[in-house]
Amino acid sequence: MEDILNLRYAMDTFYFLVSGALVMWMASGFAMLEAGLVRAKNTAEILTKNVALFAIACIMYMVMGYNIMYPDGGNGYIPDFSFMFMFGGDHDPAEVLKTDPAAWYDGSYYSGMSDFFFQVVFVATAMSIVSGAVAERMKLWAFLLFAVVMTGFIYPMQGYWKWGGGFLDAAGFNDFAGSGVVHLCGAAAALAGVILLGARKGKYSADGRINAIPGSNLPLATLGTFILWLGWFGFNGGSELVLSNVAEANAVAAVFVNTNMAAAGGVIAALITARILFGKADLTMALNGALAGLVAITAEPLAPTPLWATVVGAIGGVIVVFAIIGMDKLKIDDPVGAISVHGVVGMWGLMAVPMSNTDATFGAQIYGLVVILAWTFVASFIVWMIIKAIMGIRVSEEEEYEGCDVSECGLEAYPEFTGSKGSGL
Amino acid sequence: MEDILNLRYAMDTFYFLVSGALVMWMASGFAMLEAGLVRAKNTAEILTKNVALFAIACIMYMVMGYNIMYPDGGNGYIPDFSFMFMFGGDHDPAEVLKTDPAAWYDGSYYSGMSDFFFQVVFVATAMSIVSGAVAERMKLWAFLLFAVVMTGFIYPMQGYWKWGGGFLDAAGFNDFAGSGVVHLCGAAAALAGVILLGARKGKYSADGRINAIPGSNLPLATLGTFILWLGWFGFNGGSELVLSNVAEANAVAAVFVNTNMAAAGGVIAALITARILFGKADLTMALNGALAGLVAITAEPLAPTPLWATVVGAIGGVIVVFAIIGMDKLKIDDPVGAISVHGVVGMWGLMAVPMSNTDATFGAQIYGLVVILAWTFVASFIVWMIIKAIMGIRVSEEEEYEGCDVSECGLEAYPEFTGSKGSGL
Amino acid sequence: MEDILNLRYAMDTFYFLVSGALVMWMASGFAMLEAGLVRAKNTAEILTKNVALFAIACIMYMVMGYNIMYPDGGNGYIPDFSFMFMFGGDHDPAEVLKTDPAAWYDGSYYSGMSDFFFQVVFVATAMSIVSGAVAERMKLWAFLLFAVVMTGFIYPMQGYWKWGGGFLDAAGFNDFAGSGVVHLCGAAAALAGVILLGARKGKYSADGRINAIPGSNLPLATLGTFILWLGWFGFNGGSELVLSNVAEANAVAAVFVNTNMAAAGGVIAALITARILFGKADLTMALNGALAGLVAITAEPLAPTPLWATVVGAIGGVIVVFAIIGMDKLKIDDPVGAISVHGVVGMWGLMAVPMSNTDATFGAQIYGLVVILAWTFVASFIVWMIIKAIMGIRVSEEEEYEGCDVSECGLEAYPEFTGSKGSGL
Repeated sequence: MEDILNLRYAMDTFYFLVSGALVMWMASGFAMLEAGLVRAKNTAEILTKNVALFAIACIMYMVMGYNIMYPDGGNGYIPDFSFMFMFGGDHDPAEVLKTDPAAWYDGSYYSGMSDFFFQVVFVATAMSIVSGAVAERMKLWAFLLFAVVMTGFIYPMQGYWKWGGGFLDAAGFNDFAGSGVVHLCGAAAALAGVILLGARKGKYSADGRINAIPGSNLPLATLGTFILWLGWFGFNGGSELVLSNVAEANAVAAVFVNTNMAAAGGVIAALITARILFGKADLTMALNGALAGLVAITAEPLAPTPLWATVVGAIGGVIVVFAIIGMDKLKIDDPVGAISVHGVVGMWGLMAVPMSNTDATFGAQIYGLVVILAWTFVASFIVWMIIKAIMGIRVSEEEEYEGCDVSECGLEAYPEFTGSKGSGL
Repeated sequence: MEDILNLRYAMDTFYFLVSGALVMWMASGFAMLEAGLVRAKNTAEILTKNVALFAIACIMYMVMGYNIMYPDGGNGYIPDFSFMFMFGGDHDPAEVLKTDPAAWYDGSYYSGMSDFFFQVVFVATAMSIVSGAVAERMKLWAFLLFAVVMTGFIYPMQGYWKWGGGFLDAAGFNDFAGSGVVHLCGAAAALAGVILLGARKGKYSADGRINAIPGSNLPLATLGTFILWLGWFGFNGGSELVLSNVAEANAVAAVFVNTNMAAAGGVIAALITARILFGKADLTMALNGALAGLVAITAEPLAPTPLWATVVGAIGGVIVVFAIIGMDKLKIDDPVGAISVHGVVGMWGLMAVPMSNTDATFGAQIYGLVVILAWTFVASFIVWMIIKAIMGIRVSEEEEYEGCDVSECGLEAYPEFTGSKGSGL
Repeated sequence: MEDILNLRYAMDTFYFLVSGALVMWMASGFAMLEAGLVRAKNTAEILTKNVALFAIACIMYMVMGYNIMYPDGGNGYIPDFSFMFMFGGDHDPAEVLKTDPAAWYDGSYYSGMSDFFFQVVFVATAMSIVSGAVAERMKLWAFLLFAVVMTGFIYPMQGYWKWGGGFLDAAGFNDFAGSGVVHLCGAAAALAGVILLGARKGKYSADGRINAIPGSNLPLATLGTFILWLGWFGFNGGSELVLSNVAEANAVAAVFVNTNMAAAGGVIAALITARILFGKADLTMALNGALAGLVAITAEPLAPTPLWATVVGAIGGVIVVFAIIGMDKLKIDDPVGAISVHGVVGMWGLMAVPMSNTDATFGAQIYGLVVILAWTFVASFIVWMIIKAIMGIRVSEEEEYEGCDVSECGLEAYPEFTGSKGSGL
């Protein structure tokens, strides 16, 4: 029996680590997607943001976020802020950060370190959503400062409410892998930033025209989408949390299949929708369709049949095309469509749960949706406001015209490729 | 014992899922490879095709392909078309699509869902091969229509003959992971399309000259090759189908090593061959050499020693260089060399099996080779013909000159990079 | 019990194979990183080098390297060169290359083939380090010839001294996953090459000015860094060598977390250092910071707490910025900063071991550091000298001006992107 427990523990730990590595890889997917969808002159800056936000997310979640989200105690609304005393109080850092491997065989069925690893890459995903929406005009250091608060506090608080066993969990809110906790949360933070930031120069003409600003490198955006698609097998697949018996292995496999089918449904639906609306097979819509399918199935990738998963994804793919068009009508300038993909479709994902999972109710889903949206939007809005007051959040008009790469990073992403054609577009 | 069975089932399921994820990743590899080898003006379109074909493959294989390839019954030539009644007849969809996880512990040693996941990504691989060969001049929607038939019917039929336990399997035909069933099949479908489609404008001059049309982004092509190399560990490694005991674990490890060595042999052989023929270390030939090595070893990656695997790959690497040159002499215009890599070298892979696997015979290998080639070529040719009659398969001369990106997708892949130099080449 | 042993063996083998696949993926990371940091005109050539060196490493390590590094016998300094008689003497190739899967259950706890797979991709990593440092002016075939000797002899010799149980291991030298054996070794070989090769034309002006030569494609360099970050989970995580019980699973998980935290620390520290020194958030420094963090933690990713791992990485991130500046002051022209990242920070990694691992001593670490550095530098220097004498190692001035792509590979990496702006920079 000891042998069996050892093997089971090792297997579930390994499953967590592999899943976590796939989710970490999504950071690369977001970076490529966003770099491909902005103009060449803002590419190095968006890459810098993506690399740095991942690093910040890891550090802030280690220092405080993980302990907020999975505290020793709390009343369901406010966690036991044990982390605050981590480096000085009566908490042993090794205890709080769970650094002693030997301490992890007391009833736990996998390594606590592997759990931390899996959780930390989720935070980074939420934050990656923000960077795309505020691209091409937000100050780099203002963004990174927001990342500190978002990954250390805003995200973990609502994470605690659901996954940490807080009041949303108690209310019967269902969110398997985070259509709400991760994707809607990231989109709500982005929306607050975009509203305060305003649109890019030239995006909306005074006469009401909406000007397309094409992405500079679509192979990169496509690569990013494929990376995210792959990484999502870890994101959803790992969220079953256990693998080591027949029932759980079947569940993990079903999650893999449904995740894949939803993405496929999203691609086809978005492509056809774009064909009908624009007369063309718009690649960027196909990519957004894939991501929409993935976001849509994330709240419940286990209960659906593969056919229903395809439908859930396809509806997400239709929604995302109209959402992107709608955002532009509202003059909410989101260069990569992140708010549409992760926010609007994230809501659809949450509401789709009761359609296949009989344990879920529409009431509880709406409750969770509203709480996550309201908390994240309000908290983010306040933080963005404070940052704006302190250091400003938008680059100067001249810097925006010249591109953020030179002003923020002191270099160009493609110094040899963009001649006269690229500059100042 | 129950504990052991649970762990074994979970382990083999996880091994399947990880392998399948790696094969899914190959879709990205094909997309990057093909995007890198076409001209900038056709890049967005080839990316759209690759994303969409993967989605179509998943959906069509779920709806009908999987049930054709692995039917409940059949006479070895024609499967029991149970799928046709799936949504209306006496078949319970949950039964046919195997959606009930609990139903999968009756004797099976891994999750049926994980099997479906592993199989579905193989179909996409076969279809990805086609898109490269017909690049830069085929209509997008005609291609996608072909993808529907290919992934839903043509591929699964011959898959049934071998892997579904049909007449080719009974005849002693050996094809471990699909040099024939996947790669030759994809190449045969591509060949039929290319013949009907004709060469790109300007490829073959009236005076008999062959004009090189260089790929626009070789780092992308290299990335694609590395992705495929990585994904192939899942492709071949997963095809052992079991991992959970000493003998099987050794076998899977041997497959990983041999797959890697064959690719290495292919690179070096193709590079040296190119050096001798052209006087230069042609990067595209090195990349094709890697892929040739991988295709060559796919029919039998278990039996060879690592040294023999290197030789099998190296011979593939030599063959592919001459095959690419030969195709051009035959005026078969294949922008990425897919027919050479997957078709010609796929045949070499099939014929190499008896050299290391004493269970195989040259007669049975030739039989399988001819059947797969004939079936796929003829069936594909008919389908391409029908599509041509209905909607045409080739873009207009003006669209080809301007590039498929604008006419088919309504956007450009690199709007800021290609100035006057890029257009119209 | 037999059942348990089977499962344990399969699990550890699979863990090795997955780890090895991740390390193989690092080859792609180095290729993208280096291709992104050189000028467009030298991109195809550096890609060719990266693909070919990986293939050479695999073949040479199979033919002789593995047997030097893990010999049947030896005196701790010189291994039993059994390989020399492998194909002709009294050694059965199947025995030496361990090609018979069945032979691998005699006491070994995982497949010997999986061990070979994991080891072979490490050799390629060491060699990949070299290609970046000598980029943009070294002859392709001279480089590949060096790769033959490096991967077949120089690297395996010092690998034997530590990991093969030689005298460095006996002396108490600690190097968990190879800050010394892999990274410092690669950097030392690179340094010898760079010294003999000289700087790129135009890098150092006669009047003492140092001219920045910007990389042509920073998204590619960022992608490469993310790939390396991901692959490092296999590099360090796999180096625990066993996974299949609670203690080992905990250890592997701790290694994953610490590896990730060190990279995060490196990014932030390098970004802030660059901000202070240059006033800008230099993306290339952030990328080098990530890699520096990873190299720094590689010598001891198990013993540190996550917090200390972050600090070790952060110190690496600071060191790498100053090292890159210092190399330029010494006129050691390293286009991608490989010597700084892998060499200078590799030394820091070795010296950091005793700070968290009480089994290690500073004396033994210095001993190992000096031996690896001295051996690799001297042996490499001699080999580079011999190659220089035979065929020359540097391209002609005209070829350097025109770019290595055309002269060495006969093609361009981006034929449509670089107009007048790109050529001759």
